[in-house]
Amino acid sequence: MSCTIDRTAGGREYKVKDIAEADFGRLELDLAEAEMPGLMACRTEFGPAQPFKGAKITGSLHMTIQTAVLIETLVALGAEVRWCSCNIFSTQDHAAAAIARDTAAVFAWKGETLEEYWWCTEQSLIWPDSDGPDLIVDDGGDATLLIHEGVAAEAAFAANGKLPDPESTTNPEFKIVLRIIKESIERDATRFTRMAKKIQGVSEETTTGVKRLYEMQASKSLLFPAINVNDSVTKSKFDNVYGCRHSLPDGIMRATDVMIAGKVAFIAGYGDVGKGCAAAMKAAGARVIVSEIDPICALQACMEGYQVLPLSDCVEYADIFVTTTGNKDILLAADMAKMKNNAIVGNIGHFDNEIDMAGLYAIPNIKRQNIKPQCDRFIFPDGHGVIVLAEGRLLNLGCATGHPSFVMSCSFTNQVIAQLELWNERTSGRYENKVYILPKHLDEKVASLHLPKLGAKLTKLTPEQAEYIHVSVDGPYKPAHYRY
Amino acid sequence: MSCTIDRTAGGREYKVKDIAEADFGRLELDLAEAEMPGLMACRTEFGPAQPFKGAKITGSLHMTIQTAVLIETLVALGAEVRWCSCNIFSTQDHAAAAIARDTAAVFAWKGETLEEYWWCTEQSLIWPDSDGPDLIVDDGGDATLLIHEGVAAEAAFAANGKLPDPESTTNPEFKIVLRIIKESIERDATRFTRMAKKIQGVSEETTTGVKRLYEMQASKSLLFPAINVNDSVTKSKFDNVYGCRHSLPDGIMRATDVMIAGKVAFIAGYGDVGKGCAAAMKAAGARVIVSEIDPICALQACMEGYQVLPLSDCVEYADIFVTTTGNKDILLAADMAKMKNNAIVGNIGHFDNEIDMAGLYAIPNIKRQNIKPQCDRFIFPDGHGVIVLAEGRLLNLGCATGHPSFVMSCSFTNQVIAQLELWNERTSGRYENKVYILPKHLDEKVASLHLPKLGAKLTKLTPEQAEYIHVSVDGPYKPAHYRY
Amino acid sequence: MSCTIDRTAGGREYKVKDIAEADFGRLELDLAEAEMPGLMACRTEFGPAQPFKGAKITGSLHMTIQTAVLIETLVALGAEVRWCSCNIFSTQDHAAAAIARDTAAVFAWKGETLEEYWWCTEQSLIWPDSDGPDLIVDDGGDATLLIHEGVAAEAAFAANGKLPDPESTTNPEFKIVLRIIKESIERDATRFTRMAKKIQGVSEETTTGVKRLYEMQASKSLLFPAINVNDSVTKSKFDNVYGCRHSLPDGIMRATDVMIAGKVAFIAGYGDVGKGCAAAMKAAGARVIVSEIDPICALQACMEGYQVLPLSDCVEYADIFVTTTGNKDILLAADMAKMKNNAIVGNIGHFDNEIDMAGLYAIPNIKRQNIKPQCDRFIFPDGHGVIVLAEGRLLNLGCATGHPSFVMSCSFTNQVIAQLELWNERTSGRYENKVYILPKHLDEKVASLHLPKLGAKLTKLTPEQAEYIHVSVDGPYKPAHYRY
Amino acid sequence: MSCTIDRTAGGREYKVKDIAEADFGRLELDLAEAEMPGLMACRTEFGPAQPFKGAKITGSLHMTIQTAVLIETLVALGAEVRWCSCNIFSTQDHAAAAIARDTAAVFAWKGETLEEYWWCTEQSLIWPDSDGPDLIVDDGGDATLLIHEGVAAEAAFAANGKLPDPESTTNPEFKIVLRIIKESIERDATRFTRMAKKIQGVSEETTTGVKRLYEMQASKSLLFPAINVNDSVTKSKFDNVYGCRHSLPDGIMRATDVMIAGKVAFIAGYGDVGKGCAAAMKAAGARVIVSEIDPICALQACMEGYQVLPLSDCVEYADIFVTTTGNKDILLAADMAKMKNNAIVGNIGHFDNEIDMAGLYAIPNIKRQNIKPQCDRFIFPDGHGVIVLAEGRLLNLGCATGHPSFVMSCSFTNQVIAQLELWNERTSGRYENKVYILPKHLDEKVASLHLPKLGAKLTKLTPEQAEYIHVSVDGPYKPAHYRY
Repeated sequence: MSCTIDRTAGGREYKVKDIAEADFGRLELDLAEAEMPGLMACRTEFGPAQPFKGAKITGSLHMTIQTAVLIETLVALGAEVRWCSCNIFSTQDHAAAAIARDTAAVFAWKGETLEEYWWCTEQSLIWPDSDGPDLIVDDGGDATLLIHEGVAAEAAFAANGKLPDPESTTNPEFKIVLRIIKESIERDATRFTRMAKKIQGVSEETTTGVKRLYEMQASKSLLFPAINVNDSVTKSKFDNVYGCRHSLPDGIMRATDVMIAGKVAFIAGYGDVGKGCAAAMKAAGARVIVSEIDPICALQACMEGYQVLPLSDCVEYADIFVTTTGNKDILLAADMAKMKNNAIVGNIGHFDNEIDMAGLYAIPNIKRQNIKPQCDRFIFPDGHGVIVLAEGRLLNLGCATGHPSFVMSCSFTNQVIAQLELWNERTSGRYENKVYILPKHLDEKVASLHLPKLGAKLTKLTPEQAEYIHVSVDGPYKPAHYRY
Repeated sequence: MSCTIDRTAGGREYKVKDIAEADFGRLELDLAEAEMPGLMACRTEFGPAQPFKGAKITGSLHMTIQTAVLIETLVALGAEVRWCSCNIFSTQDHAAAAIARDTAAVFAWKGETLEEYWWCTEQSLIWPDSDGPDLIVDDGGDATLLIHEGVAAEAAFAANGKLPDPESTTNPEFKIVLRIIKESIERDATRFTRMAKKIQGVSEETTTGVKRLYEMQASKSLLFPAINVNDSVTKSKFDNVYGCRHSLPDGIMRATDVMIAGKVAFIAGYGDVGKGCAAAMKAAGARVIVSEIDPICALQACMEGYQVLPLSDCVEYADIFVTTTGNKDILLAADMAKMKNNAIVGNIGHFDNEIDMAGLYAIPNIKRQNIKPQCDRFIFPDGHGVIVLAEGRLLNLGCATGHPSFVMSCSFTNQVIAQLELWNERTSGRYENKVYILPKHLDEKVASLHLPKLGAKLTKLTPEQAEYIHVSVDGPYKPAHYRY
Repeated sequence: MSCTIDRTAGGREYKVKDIAEADFGRLELDLAEAEMPGLMACRTEFGPAQPFKGAKITGSLHMTIQTAVLIETLVALGAEVRWCSCNIFSTQDHAAAAIARDTAAVFAWKGETLEEYWWCTEQSLIWPDSDGPDLIVDDGGDATLLIHEGVAAEAAFAANGKLPDPESTTNPEFKIVLRIIKESIERDATRFTRMAKKIQGVSEETTTGVKRLYEMQASKSLLFPAINVNDSVTKSKFDNVYGCRHSLPDGIMRATDVMIAGKVAFIAGYGDVGKGCAAAMKAAGARVIVSEIDPICALQACMEGYQVLPLSDCVEYADIFVTTTGNKDILLAADMAKMKNNAIVGNIGHFDNEIDMAGLYAIPNIKRQNIKPQCDRFIFPDGHGVIVLAEGRLLNLGCATGHPSFVMSCSFTNQVIAQLELWNERTSGRYENKVYILPKHLDEKVASLHLPKLGAKLTKLTPEQAEYIHVSVDGPYKPAHYRY
Repeated sequence: MSCTIDRTAGGREYKVKDIAEADFGRLELDLAEAEMPGLMACRTEFGPAQPFKGAKITGSLHMTIQTAVLIETLVALGAEVRWCSCNIFSTQDHAAAAIARDTAAVFAWKGETLEEYWWCTEQSLIWPDSDGPDLIVDDGGDATLLIHEGVAAEAAFAANGKLPDPESTTNPEFKIVLRIIKESIERDATRFTRMAKKIQGVSEETTTGVKRLYEMQASKSLLFPAINVNDSVTKSKFDNVYGCRHSLPDGIMRATDVMIAGKVAFIAGYGDVGKGCAAAMKAAGARVIVSEIDPICALQACMEGYQVLPLSDCVEYADIFVTTTGNKDILLAADMAKMKNNAIVGNIGHFDNEIDMAGLYAIPNIKRQNIKPQCDRFIFPDGHGVIVLAEGRLLNLGCATGHPSFVMSCSFTNQVIAQLELWNERTSGRYENKVYILPKHLDEKVASLHLPKLGAKLTKLTPEQAEYIHVSVDGPYKPAHYRY
């Protein structure tokens, strides 16, 4: 598959839905900047020194308005950028248009096919005048995966001349990945290998992507240093908790207009995302039931007054089902068959296998009634239907506009600082091919950049107090294991 | 002014944005029915007897999906219906299309001019084969107002031959009303008088409309009986409180995508609407400041942990300003001039004079930057801007889809029952030209029709317990003055 | 039965637990004054004119610290006062001591027998130098009941010479009332008749007492005017809701030290008291189940996310049971037999028949294990026990110190203003032998007296705004039927 | 100083307020057992094997009812126990009596002087037939401190014959410690040295105590292994957060009866304790202001809608001040001088230097008015007073009964498991003289022992799901750095 690439007057490549939406995108970008104080402070603090001068950055991260502010921050610090989305539904087309027109090479639109998705990912890694990027901003790890799979396939090909075989897998998405790599090797048998060598590191945003990185670290297959931005406190405890607390009801309301008050909401998983989701549903007047495998999280749920039950105990009477686990097969087709008519089913945790969409499509004689974009009613042969949001993909991105700017400013300021760290230390040998977490003083810095916007004023330790609790007056204030 | 009227194949008149949206409207109507158990129960209980057989009902009420379910309920009970919206921005065009195509005469679209708005109102009152409607469903009282003004003008004309003079008022909207009546008298000098005579009554939905009715009752100018549906408990304590608790954040999020957590939200007024709004903002993580004129409501706000301050004390640092008072001049242009950059300003209480939009437009050199429909940034000469939602009109209707179906089912079930009462008693003399509230047992009935959907199970009094508290086993359970 | 009456040096009568606790009582009285701004403002505003000069006031109302501030306010306005408690467990002995020593005649102690209780009530009505009080402050209506029963019995005696027969009733408490009246008639056959004639009116505090008054009004047996203070907004929506929200967890925690978070709390009734109780249990981290007979209140509970179930559906798994209904037989002995071990059972609504204490005592071989004052474990023959608070009487008074001063200041300021109204209008004929509610401007005044303490600042209407909504700039701001 | 030691009939030593309170203590112990499912499960699971057979355990931990259940659990597992409280006000005398009579040697009463406090600590370490305990259960680290200071002083004495000099410090408490050690050396110059050698380890409960341990680890002065129980998730995220959420309002209400709703509550510190406290005050209807030094915690506070300000910005208008920082000098005497009359001041974080009690006492002409035990009003020369709870010590222990049983069951089950670990591994060399955290599977086990009591049912991973997220089906489920 191959899409046509467009070019700006200045010759920069892009592929977006409609470049004419750029003005609207710019308008929203202007508004978002006021809500992203961390990124704007980075521009002020680091911009003049142009620390990314000469750096090529590839990003694979939901191409939204907020990401656009991130991209323009990276560019403001001197970087050259190519970007794709990390989800076929999450692109905001006006954001993509504004960036494509004004700032960086973008390959993203809302409603990509899987084929198109991986084509975009590949494009974001292809640098016309170079072997590839110096740095990767990743979300979910697809860019990193493609490179690692590419390198492995090139090594196999060098060893035994065997090309990857798309037919060797039944996973339809992985089939596409293999085909892309196969075609790449047919064109250039060391492209990914050269690319990996050039890369100074990746900073990764999500639990899912980070898990993959730790597995690669464990198997010693990680090809470049990685910074785990997901586990910065200012990411995991803000984006995951407060971002979802905001965007879960937003997504449900935009998709269904349904009253949440009085309903029974089943939240699968009570990690950071689940905590935010349960809080939002409770705040909206729902009765919340949580499911958990982890007794500690389950006990936390109890302490907040949530009922803790397995799905099977309440599948027949809950009204809204939300998956937040980062695991697969949480809501099976057989579960959905038991739900009441017009039960709402959505995923805000992870891939679309968290809800068994494949199983749902496979039910004989099931009918899919499209209500509006990202909102389908699946009608079972017995006549009852369930309303599935965003085809089982992240509903807050599919049905609403993702997390709000302010919380993304926290996450993305971590990204900027992680990218700076990887780039500044590229020759120091400080970072091996392992996974690192940002040091706490940088984490605290991210937070402090966001306080003035909210009118919050910090208290200062006296030197005597600092000594008394054995910290520096300027922090960091907490031990590494502190849980917040 | 005169728009072209379209006709269905069967000859029914309508004027909507795009009749082709009818299928989408029907889909959403189907979904809404499942969320409106009170209306559906009315169809089941009353439909077979066709109590509205022969009744012509004119409605002036936001032409949304939920209203469509109301309209189809009235028709299911035997009525013939004509409808307009009561707000220039509140029509959902797919809902209007579905009703126009399938059910009733509709004159409504999103984004009417004021001229168009009053033309639609007039059309909804014109019955081709009759002097006018038998019953009116009103929201805000504009249909009732037009009739009463028309009757008064016809009486003046009969007395002294003087036509209403649009130039006699500076209010641009009332100018239009006077022109319509003038042209009506020029065509037919007793049309409104005959119409008023035919009308058996009106049921009114809002605080604002009810206030007008009580004023007419006080001045003995009310021309037909009125049922105050607004003050049914199942309306005022549900629609106003829980409806706004749902739709305020919905409107803000759809319009601005802004993070509410951490912000300072100023809620002007702590009546039912204000209570719902303050609860929603608090639930979303905002710090809430309430303003009140009434010490009792102010003390209630204190008990919930809200700060109570006049606007002038916090105009410079609040982030979100919401008016809920039902009064005028709550946020003046001079106030908005003092707000911080990108402060969000919206009204969920009443007309667009609650925020001083006229004053805002009148500021020399102010610029209006349209961000998206129903979301404008007004840029002051000093460079700072405020984001005004829905042009100062009801933001939940303008920026989101209004209240959710479930809560509207409570309000609209009251409407159906009020209309039935007016119609059934039309010859009994039970209702004079006064304003009435629905009897409590009907109010309780509305509530009970909504409980099974939520899985709620009532407790039954024993006869001994009923006697002990001096109520009937089947209710009503509370004295008239009970406050809930 | 007859207790010994003590006398102060100055000759004022009293009967309290220990007059030596007066200093401690005075200390707490001083603190409470700072939390009762409404009463203190009454002293400032009305004190100089001594409006109660010459008035004898009898009060039957929980003899707590807060009541002591009320009593001293009445005295500061010129009244002479005699007082008893309206609950055998609710007296705070140090408060009683301080008042007895310093201010007024008091007959009250914590832990009265029923005999002692009615003796105290009688003493509070006996004025050495007079036929009885001029005014009554009542809570629950026992003082009013005694007088009405006395008058009726004296009338019967005058008619046919028959004395009341304590054996004519099986109700043990009413037996005592009849005995007291019998003995009174034997001493003085017209005492209650003369007393009733002298009384200018009663102001009543509670739902229960008010219900009795309306019944007497309906049967035309009410002997003097009554002001229903319970239905002042500043009483019912503050004392009942916020008072109980405070004092329910206070009572449970003091009595049992049990963790509320994670527990299932069953709240019988979702009126004002139930709303406060449910909010408190939810806030403390419990999962709340509400029972209701009234579908409107039930639907309100749903909107707040509470599950609505009859007792029978959850009697076996709830941990905490609280009755708030004002009805009888809510928790039967048979229900308690089904509860889980160490379930906590308490009443905050009404008399001790709301929980079937009589039935509990009557279970063969049940054992009562006293844990501490006001906290008993009843052990069923099968070995499981339930923990009953305050012997089924009001747990917030029995196990804690009742409502906090601030909320009682609202209620009691209503009492003061009602007493002033009755006294000032005693000769005007304004009040007939009916039940009245305080006019709204006085209700608003009570609220406004409490705002400065909380730092709340009201907004003022402009004259144009006031005209626009048809109210006076200075209020009252709401129609009579407004629900708050 | 030397108190008389009492002895049970069986010869076990104790010193308590009143042994006659043992029956009441036993009653409450029985009730508490039902609320401490983790400890009871330990008895069931480990009791039969008597793993602590031969182990002598000294505990220095608030001698409450809940601690009594811990002590009886240790004894049920075979240990011999001696106990003291770790706070002069925290002992519940009936709990101490029951344990003294039935189970173990106790030296503790409510209201010890500092001299008595350290005498009790010393007694708990003296084992008549042994050099000292095998294990220590510590809270705050005073037992550990005494031993370490003792060992150091004995070493100094051995080196240069110099005895510790109480006059060498101005800290009155440390003076006492030095005197005790001095007298000990005068009696037996190697007692502490022998004792330290015998000790297999300590498990420590609090942030403060743990901080001391890490400092000793850093300076390599730690004399035996230590398990940091404070940082078990099931301790820090439950005891600190939910325990304080329960016991802060409990303490304030018992001490002052003040209405929290409507007040401004200032919470110094937004760590785990601060989070619980702020949540409790918000839940009770207060307006909460938080102060923080750490920008991350400050941003968390913002996200929950709390205002974040330094003390100086609100010292004049807040009503309730609570310190939760674990640092010193948070509320200085000069701050209290600026507070409004009857402002309430309490500490729930740490020692009584968190509030500057010494500075308060030192104000010339300040008057202390004792209202009731643990509640004093300090009257400044200008006439205004502040109400200080528990003399600046932990108010939840001083004014109420500390954390409720359920949450203490979590903490104490960690203690039991930590003690088992130290004892079972005493010869394996697994634990060096360092500070350890309990492994996650034990932490999860603690949680799981508490779920059935709350009716919570866990979901089980399928093997496929477990593999997908790379955990074992039976846990542990989270990486070490997970923050919950």
